[in-house]
This record gives sequence, C-alpha cells and structure tokens, in this order.
Amino acid sequence: MPPGPLVYGEHVTYFDVASTAPLHPVARQALTAALDEGWADPARLYRSGRQARMLLDAARETVAEVLGARADEISFTGSGTQAVQLGILGALAGNRRTGRHLVHSAVEHSSVLHTAEQHAAAGGEVTEVGVDRQGLVSARDFAAAIRPDTALAVLQSANHEVGTVQPVTETAAAISGVPLLVDAAQSAGRLPVPPGWSLLAASAHKWGGPAGVGVLAVRKGVRYASPLPADERERGRVPGYVNVPAIVAAAASLRAVRAEAERENARLHALVERIRAQVPRLVPEVEVVGDPVNRLPHLVTFSCLYVDGEVLLTELDRAGFAVSSGSSCTSSTLTPSHVLAAMGVLTEGNVRVSLPYGVAEADVDRFLAVLPDIVAGVRAPLGLDLAVPAASGRQTLVIDALGKRCPLPVIELAKRIGEVPPGGTVAVLSDDEAARLDIPAWCEMREQEYLGEAPAADYGRDRGSAYLVRRTT
Amino acid sequence: MPPGPLVYGEHVTYFDVASTAPLHPVARQALTAALDEGWADPARLYRSGRQARMLLDAARETVAEVLGARADEISFTGSGTQAVQLGILGALAGNRRTGRHLVHSAVEHSSVLHTAEQHAAAGGEVTEVGVDRQGLVSARDFAAAIRPDTALAVLQSANHEVGTVQPVTETAAAISGVPLLVDAAQSAGRLPVPPGWSLLAASAHKWGGPAGVGVLAVRKGVRYASPLPADERERGRVPGYVNVPAIVAAAASLRAVRAEAERENARLHALVERIRAQVPRLVPEVEVVGDPVNRLPHLVTFSCLYVDGEVLLTELDRAGFAVSSGSSCTSSTLTPSHVLAAMGVLTEGNVRVSLPYGVAEADVDRFLAVLPDIVAGVRAPLGLDLAVPAASGRQTLVIDALGKRCPLPVIELAKRIGEVPPGGTVAVLSDDEAARLDIPAWCEMREQEYLGEAPAADYGRDRGSAYLVRRTT
Repeated sequence: MPPGPLVYGEHVTYFDVASTAPLHPVARQALTAALDEGWADPARLYRSGRQARMLLDAARETVAEVLGARADEISFTGSGTQAVQLGILGALAGNRRTGRHLVHSAVEHSSVLHTAEQHAAAGGEVTEVGVDRQGLVSARDFAAAIRPDTALAVLQSANHEVGTVQPVTETAAAISGVPLLVDAAQSAGRLPVPPGWSLLAASAHKWGGPAGVGVLAVRKGVRYASPLPADERERGRVPGYVNVPAIVAAAASLRAVRAEAERENARLHALVERIRAQVPRLVPEVEVVGDPVNRLPHLVTFSCLYVDGEVLLTELDRAGFAVSSGSSCTSSTLTPSHVLAAMGVLTEGNVRVSLPYGVAEADVDRFLAVLPDIVAGVRAPLGLDLAVPAASGRQTLVIDALGKRCPLPVIELAKRIGEVPPGGTVAVLSDDEAARLDIPAWCEMREQEYLGEAPAADYGRDRGSAYLVRRTT
Repeated sequence: MPPGPLVYGEHVTYFDVASTAPLHPVARQALTAALDEGWADPARLYRSGRQARMLLDAARETVAEVLGARADEISFTGSGTQAVQLGILGALAGNRRTGRHLVHSAVEHSSVLHTAEQHAAAGGEVTEVGVDRQGLVSARDFAAAIRPDTALAVLQSANHEVGTVQPVTETAAAISGVPLLVDAAQSAGRLPVPPGWSLLAASAHKWGGPAGVGVLAVRKGVRYASPLPADERERGRVPGYVNVPAIVAAAASLRAVRAEAERENARLHALVERIRAQVPRLVPEVEVVGDPVNRLPHLVTFSCLYVDGEVLLTELDRAGFAVSSGSSCTSSTLTPSHVLAAMGVLTEGNVRVSLPYGVAEADVDRFLAVLPDIVAGVRAPLGLDLAVPAASGRQTLVIDALGKRCPLPVIELAKRIGEVPPGGTVAVLSDDEAARLDIPAWCEMREQEYLGEAPAADYGRDRGSAYLVRRTT
C-alpha cells in the first residue's frame, strides 16, 4: 500500500466521508476534556451533575446557532437514523388530525424509506416523488403530491450517494402549510442549513463529530407527539441517558467544521471538478452521475461499465483508497442503490468518492493516476473484445444470463450483440435486479436502442425478465 | 470543600455510581485506541471498515462471555433505556399470538414503567406485582400474575434505588414458558447475571463504560419482532450507525470490572454494612431501607425524618459528597420515588449512597463523620422541639398543611401531636403526594397509630386528603 499523507490520523487515503468522517481533532480534544468535566448525570443536583448540565446546555446553544435553530428546538438523539425515525413518526403522530399521508422523495436515505414503509404497513399512506436523471427533486412535483390529508413531507438537503443538492427552500414554499422534515445529514456543518424546515435531522459523525450523536430539531409551534415511551429527557423526545461528552465533542466539531467550510468547500469543489472532468477522459465506458452544478462540494459518483463493484472497491483498497459503492454486489441485499435506480443511471462498477476536509491535492491526483489501470485490470479477465463484433447473420439472439449477477448480464450483452446485424434484436434473460437498470443505461451509453422488458416466461423460463435491445449500428 | 482522595479522576467524593459510574481507566484507554483503530464504518469493505468490524466482533464476544450469552444473541443499543424499551416492545410484538398481557414488578426502572404505560395506552394489558417492605419481589406473586395470554414478564436483577437483589432465577422457574426480560442495569459487571432470562438489558455507563452504549440480549429461539423501522444493523434490532469506539470501551471495562468484582464487592459490602449500622446510631429518626441481606454490595439508601431531601443533598454536596435521592423535592415531577412508594417506606430526606470501585474507606468514614451535623443543621431551622409536646386537652386536632410540600406536613404533625392527649386524634390535611407515604411511615417509626386516609372534603376543603393519626403515648 502506498504510504500517502496523513488525513486526520489515517494512513490510508480515505475518500468516504459520506459514510463517516474521521474524528475532527477539535472533537477529539473536546471529547477528552468532556470525559473529565462532563461525565456525570446532567439530571443530578451535585456539582459534577450541574457541570455536565452546563456543558450540555452550551453544546445545545452551539448546535442551535450553527444549524439556525433555537436551543429549545434541539434534541440530541443516538444517531442520525434515530433522528430521522423519531422526526417522521413524531411529526406524523402530532399531525394525525390532518391525516396519515406522507410524501418523500425517491432518493432519501434508507432510514426515511424504512420509516415510510413502517408507516404504510401500519395503515398510513405514502407518496414517493421521483427525481430526474441527475437525482434532482422538482419542487413542483413535490407540491403536486401534497393532499389535504398530507401530514408530513420529507426531503433531504443533499443526496448522500450522488451529491445532488435539493431545492429545499423552494419545496418548502411550494408545499406551504405542510410540515417539512429536512434530512440534512450530508450537508450539516459543510453548508448552511436552507431555510424552510419544520423538522431537521442530522448526524454528528458525518461532520467529524463522534458516533452516537444525532440531532433532531423541531421548530417552535410544529406539532410533535413522541412515538416512544415517556421520558423526561431531551424535551421528552429522546429516551435514555444523555451522552454529554459525545454531544460536547459533536458541538465543538460542528463549529470547527463550519468555520473551515468556506475555504475547504472551494478547494474540494475544485478537486471534485477535476475528478468529474478527468474520469471520463481516463476511463472508457464510464458515467459520472449526479447534478454537475447543484452539488455537494466534496462528493462525486461514477459508474464503470463491465465492472464488478466489489472487485473494484477491493482493488482500490489495495491501492490505498477507501471509497464506497452503490453497486448491488457491494450491498448485503444484492440490490443496487435505490438512489441510482430512481435516477435511472448505470449501477454497475459504481464508485462514490467523498473527500475529507484537509485532503491533499496530491492524493486526488494519485487516485486519478491509478484508477484507469485498476479499472482496466478488473475488466481484463472478462475477455471483452468490444471493438470486433463477429456477426452471425441471425436477426434475433437470446442470451440466457439467469443466475448471473451484475455486471455479467451487461457483459454478455456487450460481447454478443455483434452476433446480430444492425436492426437485429437481443433478448437478455436475467433475474438480477441490477440488469433492469444497467441494460437500459448501457444502451444509452452505447447508443443502442432499448425496447423494453418482457416476462422471461415468453422465452420458456420460469423466472426473471427478458430485456430487449435493438442493435442500431 | 475537603480535598478527599481521588476516585477515578474526580476531586469530589462521588457516591452515586448507581446513576452513572465514572469512566473506568481501562474504558478510557480502549476508547482512545478505538477512536484511532475503529472509527470507520464497520459495514464497509475497505481496510479501516474491516478493522472496525473486527473490533466490533471482538467486543461482542467479550460482552457475550461476561454476561453469559452467545455473541449472536447480543445487540448494542444507544442506552440502557433503549435496550429496555426495545426488549419489551420487541418481545411483546414477537409474542403477539400468545396475547398482550405484560407483567412487571412495581419497583422496576422508570423505563420499564413508561414502556408498560405505552403498551397499556395501545390496548395492551399490564399487571404490576407488588413488593414487600424491603423492596423484594416474591416469585410466587409473580407466578400468580401470569395468565394464558401473558406475552412477557419483566424483572430487574437488583433494584436501582434500594439495592435489593431480586429472585430472578426462582421467578424464571416459577413462570416457566413465559419469556422473562431481566433488566440487569444495576448489577451487570458487578455480579454474575442470574440464569433464567429470555431477554437481558444492561447499560455500559453503569459499569464504568462510556455513555451511549446499552446491551440487549435475546436468547436464541425467543420470539422477537422489531418495533422500529427496518435496519440491517445489529441483527435488525437497533437502527442507526454503530458506535464502535464506545462499544469497544464498554466491552473492555466490562471485562475489567468483572475481574475486579470479587475483591471490590467484598470490600464495598463491608463499607455499606458500616453505613447501614452506623447511620441509625449517629442520626436520630432515620430509616435504612432495602433488603439488608439480599442486596447489592455497593448501594445503601436511608431516609431522614423532618428533612427536605433537596436541602440535604445540597449540604452534602457542599461537604464534598455527591449522592442521589428519591425524595419528591428532588424530582422534576415533585412525586416521591415509585420504588419507595411501592415499599411503603419513608420518602422524605432520602439519600442513596452507591460506592464506586476503588473508593477509599476513609471517605466512607468521613461521610459518616459529617452526616449527623449536616442532618441536624438541616433540621435546626424547622424549630422542632419534639421532646416537649404541650398538651391542650383537645381530643381532636386538624392540621391544615394544604399547599405545603414534603417534609412540612410530617413536621407539622410531629410538632403538634402533643396538643392532643394519648388516645386523641390528629387529621393532617395535605395535597402533597409524599404525605400519603410519609405520614404512615412516621407513625411506624414513632409508634403512633395510623388510622387511614379520608377525603379532605370531610373537613370542608376542596382538595387533598386527610391523614388520620391516633396518639398512642
């Protein structure tokens, strides 16, 4: 592994702050101090308890100030996911009289989707608002989904997988009257919180604070009823012992990150721009996804055709780069990222790069230097010879890729489409979820015509689908 | 403030480990190391992610071993309260086919009571099993509360306010077939976990681990259905980012505390015995509560007549002692501890002493040396002259203590009972919740006859109760 310069205490070049940011030095300092000064129960009357309470109050003031809230609107949770779950369920319970309809975008974090699923399973109604090919929500589409019985709308500040910044303020204006929960997990600290939220969720470990601290803010006057058993702590919203040392560290790092943001954001924005421009030049058959303009400064995602995402991540790891992926092969469920799916973009060979504050420019350049060979190396054993298709004269071809996982169905298609002449048709039979997204995406990239999907039963198979492609050139 | 020897980094003599234990030195060391080595997302495939995963797995093995569970039975939560809530709600949901009846003791932690209240509000049924005057549950009473539709029983390993150790194993045997959730928050690490549990809840900061880590163990084969939105982490039981560094520290301190337990328990047991024996000798009108035999080694609770608990805590704090109280005046709700209420013991002037591992014997002696003067000092301004009652000849006396808070109603009674002759009756009118407990408790201590309670309306008042006492001597 190449040595690489230090990035916040790590010897690997860590390009995955969108998963978790390394602990900010200020957070570490504050944590150490608060373990000494704020370890006692802040509910107690004795000196160490009062001291913990004062530290907690000060941390709450800091977080409120940075996020643009009042201190008495802020409750600390155990995670960003808990903040999202409580925010959604609490707002739905508090606005029960309005109705049980929930609206959210198709590219929200899985914690939002899972909470919506639970709400639906409990008899609630849910409308999912789609996005464009950049992952961007339209405020107009959001407003169109609102009904008289809509109790809550949920929209992220920016997408966690592709970096697209959402039109929060416009959406809030367009749905006026309906409470809007903004999941600011990916942007809090890095960017100002956009006005318009009724509830706000964030997660400290995403901004360089410690794990174990989320933030749920509920605007004064917004109806909220706790979905959990009663507990007097954190304004009755979050049961359990309050983790003062971690909260103190979270607040300290939020302030520090916010102070560094202007300088670092501009620098990271330029480095991401370099990746966005260079990757398609250096790597053949690649698609950079996410909005090129309305985007987080530090995050970029691209997908490489004919590449197994897990193998690619492993090879990048061996080369000293820690990145993430939305490819199906890297998920425990073997389904591709719902974000990439909603955008209708390629999911195979997917790489998300998210740069930490303080990252060295040389590390980005080194990444760009090693990436082409690594992708080529991953593709090599697949024996692709895309330049020389050998036409067989048949007008139709059925490729049985049943049981084969991403990226194999697309690879089979790419290898064999030359067996039909221009105008001929290929049916790829597949039971891999990723094929539904990646075969159309491949057609768009290769300028082939995607005809649609049919049941594999039409081809005598007992499972899967047939994806139909017409060779154009 | 007297200097006092160091107790785990604190300059005050900290006698409140039952609220939270100071961070164990081993936990601090492990936390610092894990912030370096285990900060990454354990779900990621790159090196730092795999490393975090390995640390998490090792911590799970350790916790499982110390608690007598299998590693795959352990899920880490964000707090002990969350472990209790999820354990109860998850077991009730998983055993829904059996029925919706929940049984718990009257002296469980408030997190159990609040979860039971939520269950009842949602249409479930709850039976609360009483305790004796020592706070002890009877396995037979527990078994008698079980019905064919009982889905779950909940019992603490030991009481958090008075230290009484409960008959967990006998209760589990007596209710065989019904899942038993054991709340081991007060004993985990300090004492072996008693066999017989189906679900187990614990909290790391009680054993010297960091805040932000609870443990929920679910025995293989016990039915459980998560009450929260889906999430693949922690066996689908605890949504949210896993706090690896804190979990590593929690595991390390659990092992360390368990290793120290035998030696320290014997030592603390003797120190508590000293407090139990000396306090009634040194302080007049005091009641030591909790089981004198079946008890936690480190915890003792006593209540002082005619004393305002909040003032007593403040004075002890000024003398350099951090202790806790179940008196109504120290609670945000102005109601006395439900534990003391269920036991039927005196709640005023209540002090809970819980000794940390490593406490100096001299500190305990210093506590015993300053306590009598502090209690006397708190009592002095109340102008009690109990030795010389001035009989007025009236057979009945009505004391209007409406609007007066604990300990004033009892003080009025003590001051004025001498105005009636032996055989005469006093009616104390009070709307303070504590009076209902403390007037009978006072009668028992002063060998006066408590006749019972009547509506204050009988005495022409629009609120409160009349507590009737017959003067015996």
